[in-house]
Amino acid sequence: MPNDCIYLDHAATTPLHERVLEAMLPHLRNRAASNGLPRGNPSSLHAPGAAAREAVEEARESIARLIGAAPEEIVFTSGGTESDNLAVLGLAAANPDKKHIVISAVEHPAIRGVGEYLEATGYEVTRLGVDEDGLVSPERLEDVLRPDTALVAVMWANNEVGTVQPIEELAIICSEANVPFHADAVQAAGHLPIDVSRTPISTLALSAHKLYGPQGVGALYVREGVTLRPISFGGGQEKGLRGGTENVAGIVGFGEAARLAYSELEERARHEESLREALISGVAALPGVSLNGHRKKRLSNNVHLCVEGVEAESLVLFLNALGYAVGSGSACASSGHKASPVLLAMGHSEREAFSAVRITVGKDSTKAEVSGFLEAFAAAVTRLRELSPLYTS
Amino acid sequence: MPNDCIYLDHAATTPLHERVLEAMLPHLRNRAASNGLPRGNPSSLHAPGAAAREAVEEARESIARLIGAAPEEIVFTSGGTESDNLAVLGLAAANPDKKHIVISAVEHPAIRGVGEYLEATGYEVTRLGVDEDGLVSPERLEDVLRPDTALVAVMWANNEVGTVQPIEELAIICSEANVPFHADAVQAAGHLPIDVSRTPISTLALSAHKLYGPQGVGALYVREGVTLRPISFGGGQEKGLRGGTENVAGIVGFGEAARLAYSELEERARHEESLREALISGVAALPGVSLNGHRKKRLSNNVHLCVEGVEAESLVLFLNALGYAVGSGSACASSGHKASPVLLAMGHSEREAFSAVRITVGKDSTKAEVSGFLEAFAAAVTRLRELSPLYTS
Repeated sequence: MPNDCIYLDHAATTPLHERVLEAMLPHLRNRAASNGLPRGNPSSLHAPGAAAREAVEEARESIARLIGAAPEEIVFTSGGTESDNLAVLGLAAANPDKKHIVISAVEHPAIRGVGEYLEATGYEVTRLGVDEDGLVSPERLEDVLRPDTALVAVMWANNEVGTVQPIEELAIICSEANVPFHADAVQAAGHLPIDVSRTPISTLALSAHKLYGPQGVGALYVREGVTLRPISFGGGQEKGLRGGTENVAGIVGFGEAARLAYSELEERARHEESLREALISGVAALPGVSLNGHRKKRLSNNVHLCVEGVEAESLVLFLNALGYAVGSGSACASSGHKASPVLLAMGHSEREAFSAVRITVGKDSTKAEVSGFLEAFAAAVTRLRELSPLYTS
Repeated sequence: MPNDCIYLDHAATTPLHERVLEAMLPHLRNRAASNGLPRGNPSSLHAPGAAAREAVEEARESIARLIGAAPEEIVFTSGGTESDNLAVLGLAAANPDKKHIVISAVEHPAIRGVGEYLEATGYEVTRLGVDEDGLVSPERLEDVLRPDTALVAVMWANNEVGTVQPIEELAIICSEANVPFHADAVQAAGHLPIDVSRTPISTLALSAHKLYGPQGVGALYVREGVTLRPISFGGGQEKGLRGGTENVAGIVGFGEAARLAYSELEERARHEESLREALISGVAALPGVSLNGHRKKRLSNNVHLCVEGVEAESLVLFLNALGYAVGSGSACASSGHKASPVLLAMGHSEREAFSAVRITVGKDSTKAEVSGFLEAFAAAVTRLRELSPLYTS
């Protein structure tokens, strides 16, 4: 094991921003807050409760600003998965007469899983196919909408291949057909501009730890006027949509992460894009390595590759031994050893799917890290191919 | 406003333990971990992922030890509310042919709310009444069990009045009748010994922030062999029962909090009990102030009072101005201004319920704080009664 680890798996989770930790600490340290108060429960009437409540509301404003929403439209959750679940199950339950839903074929397991659950409980689920780049077609969406469509869910940017969907077009189609539209923006937020005041999205999922915030906190944007049924039951917090004592320090950290993401958005995206392009040109020199996802309409930080003659897990472990952390497909579903449904939907074979690795840079990644990685990658691929009984170049 | 705030609302939330924060920091600081690795996603194959995974598993062991469980029986959640929801909804869904559930009349809103939801979806819900001390009767439970009873849920210790239920007896009755038994131990854990290896509980809910751990993390104990249907859908984490990237730092903090609670349990309980008794004797001198909940079978840290001629919210705010933070009823449901169903179930009138305050000491509360509080309390009650047009002593 090398002493150092170059982290190139920012789509799985990002490092916590130093200033996010600073913002969280007063809410973690007992009586270290500037006001000297002990930690409170935001539902409590006394001063520590009021301080906690104010901190939560301030964070809500920062998150609203990041996506062009009003603070009242933000519901805090425990993460992206809960936000996706609450949106789709909540929208479906709010329109109980409509028993048809539409999701894309490349959704995150949080949406895919809800789709399967709804299917098992009597819903008809249309899974919108994608082209070889992973793009959903707006025309196809128009074709499949029905009077009994309860909702449409298409993720803003894919967590595996990084393809960015034509969300505005899709949202407008749904809006004109009066069908609620949910966008999973967990991977998109912090990398590209999101403005729900200009795009008729009904609900939108966010996660803090994908944008240098803490793990275990997320948010759901719920447009004013859109009705959701809660999927959990408790003390009435978050307007009854999400019971349970608020994770105050986590929410404060999310707020600070959103504030930083908002102010540094362009700068980060430009930096990531230059590293992404360096990676893509670098691997283009290697035989049998191909880029997945759309060449241009992709996340600024994402490089997703199929590597002929190599098993992704072996490659990830080999690179790890060389000091580089990258992803195999998606960290969100790595427990079951199944071929990625995203890659299958894009027309790849199972074998190709098992050869896929994801390299995702971050705001603090450097050119030197990328150069070092490209060398390690070439060496690892060559070595693994030598070891493979199946590969012949 | 005084400079200092004496915190006597530990049932709402506790301060984060200094050592819990220390344990969390390496998982919050980028590369500050002893191993120098960046923060990872526990589902990732590489070294940062493996380190995160190990940290989660170590915490799981500490939490299991606190309640006499095996680590494999612990499912991490976002808090007590989610744990309660997952248990009751999950047990009900796993036994879809049985459409009767039993809960006590003094459950936390997380259980009460699920009961109302199940009732609205075709379940019959029996709400076990309690005596004037808030106790459920084991004989009554035996009477209401039916062949179609899907589950029974009774909280270990009440979050408002502090009454501790005869959980072992109740669990044995259910076990003999082959009915799953859920216990909400959110308030009990850390105050009294819990040993699921000796009590046939099926599922048990825990929350970190009630025992000096972080907010936003909880756990559900699920006895080996007990089947739950998941209520959320995602990447398959926590054996498919709870998808979403794990809150690693939060889980680590919970683990450390559980470890400390286990080793200091008796000491803390003894200390709290002495302060509780001092409070109870102190207020006994005041006219028109009565203790709610069982005199002996109560949480070591809980004093719950009805104060004649006084509105609880005014009293809480008055005490806050004097530098003391106490609770009005329960912080878990303070948003709606409704009389506490717990007190109503114990036979109190609405007016009495609106006069109830909760004083809950903690492991670091002191005799001096209690003495100071008793003085402030007497002064506040006297002053508020003078202001009240209704009160005549």
